[in-house]
Amino acid sequence: MRQAILNLEESKIREVANAGMGRADVLPFWFGESDEITPEPVRAAAVAALQAGETFYSHNLGLPELRQAVADYASRLHGPIAAERIAITSGGVNALMLAVQMLVDAGDEVLAVTPVWPNLTAQPLILGAHLRCVALQPQPDGAWALDLPALLAAITPQTRLLIVNSPNNPTGWTLSRAEQQAILARCRETGTWILADEVYERLYYRGDTPSGAAPSFLDIAVADDRLVAVQSFSKAFLMTGWRLGWLTMPPAMTPQMGKLLEFNTSCAPVFVQRAALAALAQTDTITPRIVAHLRQCRDTLVPLLQAVPGVHTSAAPGGMYAFLRIDGFDDSLALAKRLVAEAGLGLAPGVAFAPEADGWLRWCFASKDVARLRQGVQRLRDWLAGQG
Amino acid sequence: MRQAILNLEESKIREVANAGMGRADVLPFWFGESDEITPEPVRAAAVAALQAGETFYSHNLGLPELRQAVADYASRLHGPIAAERIAITSGGVNALMLAVQMLVDAGDEVLAVTPVWPNLTAQPLILGAHLRCVALQPQPDGAWALDLPALLAAITPQTRLLIVNSPNNPTGWTLSRAEQQAILARCRETGTWILADEVYERLYYRGDTPSGAAPSFLDIAVADDRLVAVQSFSKAFLMTGWRLGWLTMPPAMTPQMGKLLEFNTSCAPVFVQRAALAALAQTDTITPRIVAHLRQCRDTLVPLLQAVPGVHTSAAPGGMYAFLRIDGFDDSLALAKRLVAEAGLGLAPGVAFAPEADGWLRWCFASKDVARLRQGVQRLRDWLAGQG
Repeated sequence: MRQAILNLEESKIREVANAGMGRADVLPFWFGESDEITPEPVRAAAVAALQAGETFYSHNLGLPELRQAVADYASRLHGPIAAERIAITSGGVNALMLAVQMLVDAGDEVLAVTPVWPNLTAQPLILGAHLRCVALQPQPDGAWALDLPALLAAITPQTRLLIVNSPNNPTGWTLSRAEQQAILARCRETGTWILADEVYERLYYRGDTPSGAAPSFLDIAVADDRLVAVQSFSKAFLMTGWRLGWLTMPPAMTPQMGKLLEFNTSCAPVFVQRAALAALAQTDTITPRIVAHLRQCRDTLVPLLQAVPGVHTSAAPGGMYAFLRIDGFDDSLALAKRLVAEAGLGLAPGVAFAPEADGWLRWCFASKDVARLRQGVQRLRDWLAGQG
Repeated sequence: MRQAILNLEESKIREVANAGMGRADVLPFWFGESDEITPEPVRAAAVAALQAGETFYSHNLGLPELRQAVADYASRLHGPIAAERIAITSGGVNALMLAVQMLVDAGDEVLAVTPVWPNLTAQPLILGAHLRCVALQPQPDGAWALDLPALLAAITPQTRLLIVNSPNNPTGWTLSRAEQQAILARCRETGTWILADEVYERLYYRGDTPSGAAPSFLDIAVADDRLVAVQSFSKAFLMTGWRLGWLTMPPAMTPQMGKLLEFNTSCAPVFVQRAALAALAQTDTITPRIVAHLRQCRDTLVPLLQAVPGVHTSAAPGGMYAFLRIDGFDDSLALAKRLVAEAGLGLAPGVAFAPEADGWLRWCFASKDVARLRQGVQRLRDWLAGQG
């Protein structure tokens, strides 16, 4: 086996979750997933396709009608995007992997903004890249912020690819329009590709954009810019387990991406794509309800956490996580394991996302029943009270 | 974009199929897919899972009960195989890609037996490998055969990975047990990994094995051998469009494969895995019917083709293809395009599978209605008669 693969870290989130296996009394907030089932009309569309016998291979790049529906949806959020720039993928993570395969040769320099979902930094390593990271900075109020001059200085003509996830998993940090413009301008100078993981764009709570979605590189880039933007049906349509996403790319990349899709998964199942068509057709009823509920979850959880002595956190502008640290606990993996074992509380350790996030914990607040969040905070409070 | 990706050939099969677009009068035999819908009980299991709300993330390596069911199924064919050696993947092609990611560093030497499905040779190139090929040899009767001494000599300590697809797409060539033993022995000497694409194992017509399946490397290897064997639900269960397969690997590789799955697609949809469980539970009714029908297709098509003046082909021992050449036509791409345009007959050009297969055509005989095959041969016969 390749040393590059042996070197990849196993998920520290899963390490904590495994420590809670068989414990029915643990409240799990460790994974990045809502506990709500996919809306019925979306499931019904897949059922209808299965009953109609849509069980054959399909287009590498996705059903033409789904690519068009995605382009229409994205155009409403970000301005005109042609269907020829869209590829349907087997999940957002698959879209990210395909982009990395397309762009990164072994030995290439890849730059990532961290802390970040570990898949984003693992993928370039699988391709044999040389990975460098620019760390966000924790602020006194518990929010994280970008050191823009440091990032711009780190982007050089040797930087093949810049990976940015905004709204960010795990910190909730979200790029401002001005930051995006500065990054895009710098990458145009250096010839650097931008891989923008924007799967949380609809889970945005600032209300300072016309569409309501988080600022996207697609808002400011032209079609031929060196940009691949990745999306997923998981978050805004409650479709995590369906494994369906898409990417938006320059038109010249599309035929090349068709080849990579063929050689990776060939295509997404047609009946899954039919479900996605139903989801997009009903986004105006599905997505606002999800976002309003998540805002309620965030606005329930964060003040309760902030009221716990020693806890530091800030209401995230985007995403579905609270990211917190607790005075006196610097080893997040040990802390997360203790919280599972001693408090029945399942959180993800910050160290899973970057060394600089050790000492932090990620709490997914996508809970259908808001009372579960209150119950979780009470468990944390009780446990901390017992630490003397 | 990477030069390695730009260099990958676009599918010449698709090039021919595109030439027939909008032509409802073309009989399509170009793709490797049956025209039968997935059996109803298999679809019903997915429908039930969707209705029950199984729409969440699942285990990277697959549902434990599906891994066990696959292990039981494979053990019946090949002797004891533990569930811990199984990973569920998003199609056979995805299993192959994961194996290549696991084993091939940029610059490594990869050896492939050709002609072969082009995905198998494209995947190592995506990882930056140095690809070498050993060509099967066409025989006077239209069958293809392995030059075993040439292959054994080509496997050296520098050979990181040997890729073999048997039963072979497109030629139908199938490794004998003696050939497998010689190859395994040589790879043990050189430390070479074997990637065995055995997705056609059930479509085997010789009847000279106890299980009825084609000889498999799994029959003769021990668990810790450097072997990854790839399977799919597509062929033996009529599940092409579901994108579900599996691989069998040494137990020490399993945790590493879990990581690669996480970073590629995370998991296969649970409702798709439920369908696979239903398929495996009913393999004794589903698969023999499929194989008997394909044998009938083969035994209808091949004698008819052999009776056409100038056509050379042989009944394949495995797979679902007739591979044929026609005297006087050496450019298979041009010939395939002319057959679409002038005869309404859709075949795949041999050059799509290797340069040495130029002049050959692949005909997928997986046709629910055997009369379509007769009609296709008549079109070929009529067209050839008109060529003077």
